[in-house]
This record gives sequence, C-alpha cells and structure tokens, in this order.
Amino acid sequence: MAKSPITLEELGQSAKAAAQLLANITTTEKNKALEAMAEALGKYADDILVANALDMVSGREKGLSNYFLDRLLLTTDRIKGMADGLRALVALPDPVGKVEDMWLGAQDIQIGRIRVPLGVVGIIYEARPNVTVDVAGICLKTGNAVILRGSGDAFNSNKIITNILATAATASGIPAGAIQLMEDTSREGAQQLMRLNKYLDVLIPRGGAGLINSVVANATVPVIETGVGNCHIYVDESADLASAEKIVLNAKTQRPSVCNAAETLLVHKNIAEDFLPMVGASLWESGVEVRGCPITRKYLSRAIPATEEDYETEFLSLIIAVKVVNSLAEAIEHINKYGTRHSEAIVTESYTNARIFQAQVDAAAVYVNASTRFTDGFQYGFGAEMGISTQKLHVRGPMGLEAMTTIKYIINGSGQVRA
Amino acid sequence: MAKSPITLEELGQSAKAAAQLLANITTTEKNKALEAMAEALGKYADDILVANALDMVSGREKGLSNYFLDRLLLTTDRIKGMADGLRALVALPDPVGKVEDMWLGAQDIQIGRIRVPLGVVGIIYEARPNVTVDVAGICLKTGNAVILRGSGDAFNSNKIITNILATAATASGIPAGAIQLMEDTSREGAQQLMRLNKYLDVLIPRGGAGLINSVVANATVPVIETGVGNCHIYVDESADLASAEKIVLNAKTQRPSVCNAAETLLVHKNIAEDFLPMVGASLWESGVEVRGCPITRKYLSRAIPATEEDYETEFLSLIIAVKVVNSLAEAIEHINKYGTRHSEAIVTESYTNARIFQAQVDAAAVYVNASTRFTDGFQYGFGAEMGISTQKLHVRGPMGLEAMTTIKYIINGSGQVRA
Repeated sequence: MAKSPITLEELGQSAKAAAQLLANITTTEKNKALEAMAEALGKYADDILVANALDMVSGREKGLSNYFLDRLLLTTDRIKGMADGLRALVALPDPVGKVEDMWLGAQDIQIGRIRVPLGVVGIIYEARPNVTVDVAGICLKTGNAVILRGSGDAFNSNKIITNILATAATASGIPAGAIQLMEDTSREGAQQLMRLNKYLDVLIPRGGAGLINSVVANATVPVIETGVGNCHIYVDESADLASAEKIVLNAKTQRPSVCNAAETLLVHKNIAEDFLPMVGASLWESGVEVRGCPITRKYLSRAIPATEEDYETEFLSLIIAVKVVNSLAEAIEHINKYGTRHSEAIVTESYTNARIFQAQVDAAAVYVNASTRFTDGFQYGFGAEMGISTQKLHVRGPMGLEAMTTIKYIINGSGQVRA
Repeated sequence: MAKSPITLEELGQSAKAAAQLLANITTTEKNKALEAMAEALGKYADDILVANALDMVSGREKGLSNYFLDRLLLTTDRIKGMADGLRALVALPDPVGKVEDMWLGAQDIQIGRIRVPLGVVGIIYEARPNVTVDVAGICLKTGNAVILRGSGDAFNSNKIITNILATAATASGIPAGAIQLMEDTSREGAQQLMRLNKYLDVLIPRGGAGLINSVVANATVPVIETGVGNCHIYVDESADLASAEKIVLNAKTQRPSVCNAAETLLVHKNIAEDFLPMVGASLWESGVEVRGCPITRKYLSRAIPATEEDYETEFLSLIIAVKVVNSLAEAIEHINKYGTRHSEAIVTESYTNARIFQAQVDAAAVYVNASTRFTDGFQYGFGAEMGISTQKLHVRGPMGLEAMTTIKYIINGSGQVRA
C-alpha cells in the first residue's frame, strides 16, 4: 500500500517541533551531523547520479535550454563539491549562543542579547540541486529547521539528496523534521507555503524575477527578497580608463548570468570620446551586444539604440546598455531610478566623488574601483551564502550564517517589578 | 477652490524624494529640526487642543469607551510631554553613519558595513495622537521619511500635529515630504498603503490584534509585526513565593491594558497549595478575576473555570488565567504553544531551571525573577521606542533608533576584478 502523501501542515508541525529542539543542540553535535551528511553524499553518489539522470532525461524531453540543463546536471565532481561545502561549514564559527551585549537596564535588571536561530526557514528555489545541499547545511549549522521547495524539474535529484541528508542527520542525533523536502511542486503548493504563518518564521525565494515577485506579492509570512540585480558601472570623468575598462569587462562578461553582473554602463560625457571606443572594442571582442544612447552611438557605430526598457532590464546575458551622463549627480539619479538596490560601482580617482557616490547610491553594496562581481558571501569572507538580499529589512547583501539567526533578550533579575 | 486631495502615489513619491536627501543630512541638522518641532508643539498647543476637542466630541457622539476617549484626549501636560519626547531624541546618539565593521575581503578589497536609514517608513496606528509625534521624531532622527496613517477617530488631532511638525521641520531645512499624514483613513486607503511596494521600505502596524493581523495578511511590503502579547509568569517549585507574588501582581495589575502585561499564571504543582491562596488573595484585592484550571479552583474557590480560549486570550484587562503544571517542561510547552513570542517570565531560585527556561522559551524577552512589564525601549535604556516587535526578522522586542536603520556595504578597491 502506498504511503499517503505528507501534507504541508504535517511538514510544518514536524519542522516546528524539530526547530524547538534544534535551537539548543550544541555546535559540536551540529558539526558532527554536517560531517555525516557530507560523507553520506559521497557514499550514495551513484544513487544521486541515477536520480539526476531521470531529471536530465525529462528536462531534455521538456525542451529545457542547454543553459538550464547545465544547471540541473550533477556529476561526481559536483557531488564532491557539495560535500566539500558541508565540510566547510563545520569550520565556520556558530553564531548561535553568542551573547552580543549585556548591560544594566532600569532598576539594574541585567539585559543580554543572545543570538538564536530564526526557527523554521522555508525556501523556494529553481533548478540547481546543489542549492538543496547548501541550504540544508546552512540551516542546520544555524539551528534552523528547513522546508525545501525545489522546482519540479529537479524533483528526483532533490528528493534523493534530501533523503540522504535527513537520514544522515537523524542518525547523527539531529531531530527528525530538521530537513524536509516539500514534494508538492505545484504552483498551488508554493502558494500554500507562502501562507504557512503558523509554522514558518521566514521564507526565502531564490530564483528569477518571476518567482521572487510572486513570493513578494503572495506571501503573508515574512520574506527575504533576494537576487534581482540590475547593476551599474559608472565611469567618472576622473577615472583611470584602463582600470575602468577592466572592471566593466569583468562585471559584464566574467559570468553574465548572475545577479551581481553589470547590466548598464554609465559614462561621463567628458571622457565618452576616449573611453567608449576603447571599452566598446573590448566588449565587442567578448561578444557583448551594446545598446547605447544617441551619444554612445556617435562613438560606437556598432551599438544599437537603447530603449527605456533596456535600462530597466536585468539581461543576465552578453548584452549591455550604455548611457552617457552629464554629471555624477545624473549617474546617481539614473542608478537610484533603475537599479534594484543590489550592487553598484563607480570608477573614479576623485576622493569627493567616491564619497558622494557611496553615500547617495541606495544599494546593498556600493563599490569604488572594483567589480560588482564581488558581491558574494564567499568573496566577503562569510564562508557561506544563502543568497543576496535586496531588501532592507533584517539583512542586506550577501546572507551568511548570521543572517539566518535573530536575537532574544534574556533578562536576569532579583525580584524587580516596574514602578 | 478646494485643493485637490493628495493621492497616495504622490505621498509616496514625495516621501521617497525626501528619503534620498534625508539619508545624508547631518545629525546636527536633524537635532536642530527636532528642537524646532518641539518648540512648535508648545507654540501651537492651543490650536492642537481645539482640534483635539473636535475629535473628542465626535468620539463621544460615536459612543467610544471612556478608556478609548482617555487615549484620544490631549491636555497641555500631554502636549508638553510630547515635546519633551522630541527633545529627548536630540540627546540620543544617531545610529546613522556608524561604520560597524571594516575588513579585507577577497583580493584585499576593503569592505565596510555602514548604518543607513531604512528609507520610507509607513505606520498604521490606532487612536493615540502622541504616537504621531513619537514616530515622526524617531523617523526624523534616523533619517527616514515617514507616512503616518492614524485612525479616523484622531484625524483632526493628527492633522494639525503633522502640519505643525512638518512645517517646523521644513523651516529648519528638512526636505518637504519627510513627515506626511495620509488623510484617507478608510479601510481601502490602508489596504493601498499595505501594497505601496514602489515607495515603502517597511510598514509597521501599531494597535490591536485585528489591525496587526490585517496588515500581516494583506501587506506586500515588508512588515514589522508588533505588540500582541499573551505573556506568562511561571512560578517554579523553587521560587521565593513572596517575590513571585510581587511579580505576578505587578505584571498583571500595574498597567493591564498594555502588551507586556501578564495574561496567564502557571504554577508548579508542588507549591500550588501554598502559593495560590496567597497570590489569589492579592489578586482578588486588586480586583482581578481569576479563571483557573480544576486544580487551581481546588485552592481558590472564587476562581471561575478557565477554558481553552482563556489560555489563548490577551485579556488586556483585570482577568488572569491560572494553570497548575506538573513540571518546568510542561510550563515551557504551554508557553511555546499559547504565547505570542513577546515576554515570558520564570520565578525560580534554581540556576538550572532559570537557564533551561531562558534557552527553551521562544520569545523576544525571557525574564528570570523580574516582571514582564520591563519589555520597553525606555526600560531597556534605548531612550526611544517605535513599538515592540513580535517577529523574528530584522528586530525583536523593543525597537529603538537602530531598529529603524539598515546597513549598506561600502567597498573600496584599487581596480580589483573577480578571478
């Protein structure tokens, strides 16, 4: 007889019960479980490859793009990489239990602020099965129970990976319910998860703009909005042009499909004549299509006309919009209008302009003379990443381990009552 | 000709434009404006009293309760209190601009984390007009633009107060649009504000459970959930009973209408026979109605039977639910089941039980041997309070000035690109 499917309510109950226990499990125990999970991935790598092959076959049948299929594909190396990721978490300091501050309040009550897990974390994500491992590991390390809701395209891969991880964790003493996959990959299922206020402390969407917008519009649980990055490079009048060229090329072409890649180049009018032909040639050689404003096209005859929509678009491909601006102020205004508050950069030798840009641009990460591609938990030294927040509440920019925690006030008195 | 009403879209635009300027206004300028606002409240106190009298008259006509009318009422003293509140903000340190940390990331890019304002803050609140002043002051001090949406019952009071504050602030150099009242007090207006994602960075509801639940259910903008407090006092087997009695009385009766007041008393079975008659007599003298479990009623014959609903209810009045429990574990389980994650207290002389209670109870503030009534920004030493968060994201417990800020990463490079 087939086992009846687990309802979302049951997943929630189970996650909440696990979370209450997990909050007080020691770092040593959590690390032991992470090691066990890493080992289990290696041990069952062949089974994972078989399950992944099923997803690949059905992906090809569905006509998924090669780009998409590559993200879905698992190999022995990639599985090893996932296991290494879990082992890397072992070495990181556990934020949970740290008393950040302790002071005397009214009537000398002793008030402390201690880091605690968020509780139950939900995550809705698109194809890549490695996200399943990363997220399960980060949540476990920070004492959170997690409900994973991956995409239907990776269902077989996600299911076996979650099974392997959950079994290894439980065998290692972690409460059942700490790592669970929501097997319902329907749109309706996702909508239910977005309204699971009784059990979820936070829901994190990881994927394209469509997914993220749907979560923001429909969720009643607290959400951390991630990832959409319409990032700009502004090349100031005083820029070192060789350095600017390097930064523009890196930000656009080093990995065009990711959120911290640049989408629009803004160039000060006084250097447009020198800089545009220079950067234009390099972009052209790298296969980048340039969509430019009228002045840009004066200096770059190959550029096609840019539309308003181009300035609003996160291309995630080898296309760049280019606009010549009259001033730093115009560049900042453009960025604050079209940007998605992710990562923005100025290339300049002017101390004052660097300061103004960093103060006035409203984004999670504001760069002077460096590529926007650095916005990443590993590049920042966090040692792990749950995604990149583009909202202002709770956490902004790359989310490391601490982002998956909150605080609790603990107050020690000796009988005080309020006057 | 009547001025055409300002649309919410216009309020939003104006707030966003103001926020961009406010983010870079110095502490000195903000403090000067706060002083000017405090002075203006004094200068125009008579006009405020006249407007408030209109609200009081229509409140009486509408048949609002005396309790409600008292919250609505302004007096010369209360206006002075509001002005003093603004002056107190001047003395507090400005969290904006503080670089909390700065380190070297990949390739030695220098990464700093600087405190910045949230941007545009929306607040939906119920009757008390002093909230208008408190919130406008806190938002200004932290460099945020605010859209205030008070209740229709306080419309005349809120309108004149906002006018006085906004005029004084603008005259003092603060951008217009920094402090605005949403004049549409309809339910539809509130719903629109909850979905003003284009302009709002956060929405904070302050009021009863109905308002808060409506905001959580309907908002698409990030929300900070505040205030519902179904708080418990657990009197452990090892408690000093005289101290426990004082704490229970204080938490229940010192100000029963507020969120950090206690609603349920849990008593360990081994001390029930001694403690319940003792605390019961004091509660009775203070006019508190006791609703007890069967064992409670064995020792307190005046107690009426408690229902399941009583344990779920934030009475906000002189009623207390009482339950005898078999163990610390049962007390913690009860609290984690019925509590609203606000403030919870144990009275105990046991070191181990104190630690277990603080570790396992899931709430913003967990007390040992002190009254839950201390959960308050002023009692904690924050010098200001925007409300008390009962969610885990962004901020938990009393929200002071820092809660109204976020961070921005500022990265200083020397031409680095990602490898």
